[in-house]
Amino acid sequence: MNGYFGNFDEPKESKSDLKPMDAEQLREHAHKMVDFIADYYKSIESFPVLSQVEFLDCGSRGACSHRNLYLESFNNCIVNVSPGYLNKLLPDSAPVHPESLQNVLAGKYVQTKILPGVTHWQSPEYFAYFPSNSSTAGFLGEMLSAGLNIVGFSWVTSPAATELEVIVLDWLAKMLKLPSDFLSQGQGGGVIQGTASEAVLVVLLAARDNFLRRFGKNSLPKLVAYASDQAHASMQKACQIAGIHPENCRVLRTESSNNYSLSPSILREAIAKDVEAGLIPCFLSATIVINGSLACYLQVGTTSSTAVDPLFELGKITKDNEMWHHVDAAYAGSACICPEYRHYIDGVEEADSFNMNAHKWFLTNFDCSVLWVKDRNALIQSLSTNPEYLKNKASQGNMVVDYKDWQIPLGRRFRSLKLWMVLRLYGVENLQSYIRNHIKLAKHFEELVGLDQRFEIVAPRTFALVCFRLRAPQNDEDCGNKLNKNLLEAVNATGKIFISHTVLSGKYILRFAVGAPLTEERHIETAWKVLQEEATALLGGTGA
Amino acid sequence: MNGYFGNFDEPKESKSDLKPMDAEQLREHAHKMVDFIADYYKSIESFPVLSQVEFLDCGSRGACSHRNLYLESFNNCIVNVSPGYLNKLLPDSAPVHPESLQNVLAGKYVQTKILPGVTHWQSPEYFAYFPSNSSTAGFLGEMLSAGLNIVGFSWVTSPAATELEVIVLDWLAKMLKLPSDFLSQGQGGGVIQGTASEAVLVVLLAARDNFLRRFGKNSLPKLVAYASDQAHASMQKACQIAGIHPENCRVLRTESSNNYSLSPSILREAIAKDVEAGLIPCFLSATIVINGSLACYLQVGTTSSTAVDPLFELGKITKDNEMWHHVDAAYAGSACICPEYRHYIDGVEEADSFNMNAHKWFLTNFDCSVLWVKDRNALIQSLSTNPEYLKNKASQGNMVVDYKDWQIPLGRRFRSLKLWMVLRLYGVENLQSYIRNHIKLAKHFEELVGLDQRFEIVAPRTFALVCFRLRAPQNDEDCGNKLNKNLLEAVNATGKIFISHTVLSGKYILRFAVGAPLTEERHIETAWKVLQEEATALLGGTGA
Repeated sequence: MNGYFGNFDEPKESKSDLKPMDAEQLREHAHKMVDFIADYYKSIESFPVLSQVEFLDCGSRGACSHRNLYLESFNNCIVNVSPGYLNKLLPDSAPVHPESLQNVLAGKYVQTKILPGVTHWQSPEYFAYFPSNSSTAGFLGEMLSAGLNIVGFSWVTSPAATELEVIVLDWLAKMLKLPSDFLSQGQGGGVIQGTASEAVLVVLLAARDNFLRRFGKNSLPKLVAYASDQAHASMQKACQIAGIHPENCRVLRTESSNNYSLSPSILREAIAKDVEAGLIPCFLSATIVINGSLACYLQVGTTSSTAVDPLFELGKITKDNEMWHHVDAAYAGSACICPEYRHYIDGVEEADSFNMNAHKWFLTNFDCSVLWVKDRNALIQSLSTNPEYLKNKASQGNMVVDYKDWQIPLGRRFRSLKLWMVLRLYGVENLQSYIRNHIKLAKHFEELVGLDQRFEIVAPRTFALVCFRLRAPQNDEDCGNKLNKNLLEAVNATGKIFISHTVLSGKYILRFAVGAPLTEERHIETAWKVLQEEATALLGGTGA
Repeated sequence: MNGYFGNFDEPKESKSDLKPMDAEQLREHAHKMVDFIADYYKSIESFPVLSQVEFLDCGSRGACSHRNLYLESFNNCIVNVSPGYLNKLLPDSAPVHPESLQNVLAGKYVQTKILPGVTHWQSPEYFAYFPSNSSTAGFLGEMLSAGLNIVGFSWVTSPAATELEVIVLDWLAKMLKLPSDFLSQGQGGGVIQGTASEAVLVVLLAARDNFLRRFGKNSLPKLVAYASDQAHASMQKACQIAGIHPENCRVLRTESSNNYSLSPSILREAIAKDVEAGLIPCFLSATIVINGSLACYLQVGTTSSTAVDPLFELGKITKDNEMWHHVDAAYAGSACICPEYRHYIDGVEEADSFNMNAHKWFLTNFDCSVLWVKDRNALIQSLSTNPEYLKNKASQGNMVVDYKDWQIPLGRRFRSLKLWMVLRLYGVENLQSYIRNHIKLAKHFEELVGLDQRFEIVAPRTFALVCFRLRAPQNDEDCGNKLNKNLLEAVNATGKIFISHTVLSGKYILRFAVGAPLTEERHIETAWKVLQEEATALLGGTGA
């Protein structure tokens, strides 16, 4: 293997004067880092996907039969990753003198102490939570952004940073066929947030302040926000931050019979009850419909009509009640660039804001959460500041977008570069194929599960997430839950794959999210084999 | 020059299947990007520091005599950067097919269309706002973080990410000689936020919720936050977000006679008045004392006693009133790693939280704002969520730090890597020399200003920021303000340097912040020459 892996040279202490940004030193060192990272990707399958914390925890369990296979590739880097492990390996104060990069990367630190504590989100056998895509283009964009290292809070602090963001988000809005009100020419526009949590927070603040202006500053205790019980926890956190009373965050129940989508009649009923009680419905987060949140592994159903109707109907309700309507498509939004999946966001024209995470399933390195709003002034009214020291001609003349007023922080990185790199270096057709391939792989996994009578698919698959479990023995749900929990721990402890779980209607369910950039059919088959083997070990049988 | 600059090859269209994370393609392309970035730093002095927006705006003005000199280096890349410039240069929808990296970097886009719209924060002639340091080590850390591309919201999602952050922030706390209550062993600890705005927001939320628990959930309209009129706008924004009524955000006046520091007696008076009115003092942001915010170009004075006393005294007042006391040292915190500047934070032991931005003046690429708190549970109580799909053994067992509960977003990058790289590759002694060198350069600039009778120093310099202006002719302040505004525009329009301004006690003042990694004495002298020449052009005289 090239580069640093397994290359343990003697430390070269450097005591020369600090030249923190010498172009030739940057060139020399950054080339070494490139090789280190390329080698990492070359050998990524040799690492336990989940950091050895779980891996070594299970030293005494039979399920760990693959353990040695995985440890072999670590070449003397075996570290017991239990809580506090790194504290034991690093000194307790900062070094007084510098150390060579060679030593830092290979000999003493990154390879031997840090990598063993890394959970490898880019591994082709990573199927947990939702994907967090890395790509060459996304990585190059991050490099260029870090290289320029500008802080683009106002247009003038780097016009290209703001303008590229406006352009690229218009491009993406068009790829998603969002209504033109979300584009930058009118009153709307897009902005890159760090995460979907920040996206939901800023629109909730805009909605809140809108209502406080209308109903008086003391009406905060009366504001009510609505979401389904499948909505992401970020919705609850946003309410907490915005000062919406916890008892005014309506968590509306969903049913398995309705594939856990929010029923318009339940929403209408809840609103009517609140209005009667003198409260003010102000915000709906419709994660239910095209949800890509961690929780909403379930989409709206298997037929397009089931999928589309609620979004229209929910939109009608929010309109009737003059509420802010936010659609969170953090995960699934990416799929909507394919014409055959676009119908899942039919009805988005009724929404006030729409969000998707390019860092999830769109090859744009973390973080890059894209938010579009129809009324950018609502955001600006809630989030702007205009101190003297940031005043400048362009801003004062209202000629430009100042993204500082669309977000929580003041400073911001040049994040549009990486999204632009992805679009520019790959092109729309490739990106569509990329999405379709993952969905095809997920479908393949779903079929494999369907062939093994010990397992069941818990909900129809819509995109690239499969929700499944071992059937509960003798319909004993407690036993079934325990069994599936044990299966999860056993498969993750092999280090061969990493999957996660959730609980739905009291059932412990396994989530298998296909979406890592390196995942191919063979990885799906390996994963399924690991699951079957561990199931067999647990059930004591011989498999299906 | 090596690499891409001025290298316009024919486009190489690539229509092969997408391999978004092929190790060898990553290697090949990332090596090219390294050369592009190293070449950028090699030629950084040839760019106009402020994007040509201002530069070309002034085409008709005499002050632009250096214009051609700067444009020459652009080799056919002359672009008129006025608002909307990039929109005219890029297509209005995303490309369907990919384009080669060569073409993207050199031929068609980055070099010719994007770089002309960049304001070069890393230029050695950048003296605006506050610095935003880049360094080889910081850049390598960003690369490695983007390469691994993990999302470290919980310990288990990459134990090394959380643990390295805990360790490195303990190191930095020790370098700053923070009281041990801010370290991780006890109830406190550090966390990397994106920006100081987020740092002040999370501690304000912790304080708010603490008071709401004590005084009832409906007491929000009674909570009062205090800061001086020199505090950063992020304080006002945090109050807005947290729902503190604007009229309950006390902006306490400061005086030039007191070097714009907050007088304890004024704070005490304001609190007494509020308590009498039935309000609840809950939060003090003591940016006044060691402020590094954009606004507080002024520190507490020139003698150590003036500097130290207020922090102790203010701390006493907040303690007496059981308020949360936050110290914002976003900029100046970095200097406190030098023993001779540490006394500026004497009294920090009275504070509940302390913040410094490693991305400002500590060679850690943006973003990396470090926040320490004495009571991490106060943060966690305000910001935690615990949905089923994120549950895991380590978190449930309270064995680990889950940083998702210390911040606004859920997801987070592996940002401790870059701060660790800076500490590990440079070492404490080098970092101290780095700070001292900038302060020495600022002192040199201050001396140069002092030698020219047309100028005045407006406030004593404490760190590496010099506040100065052209004296008002015939003591006509309006005229003086106009004159200094014109001088700012004229010098920035040369493209040779970039400085910013503020207004203090009605006076328009120029800010000269030394802190770019490449700045040497010769850059200070060039900058001063530009300022003198433009002053002469404006005043019509012959200079000092």
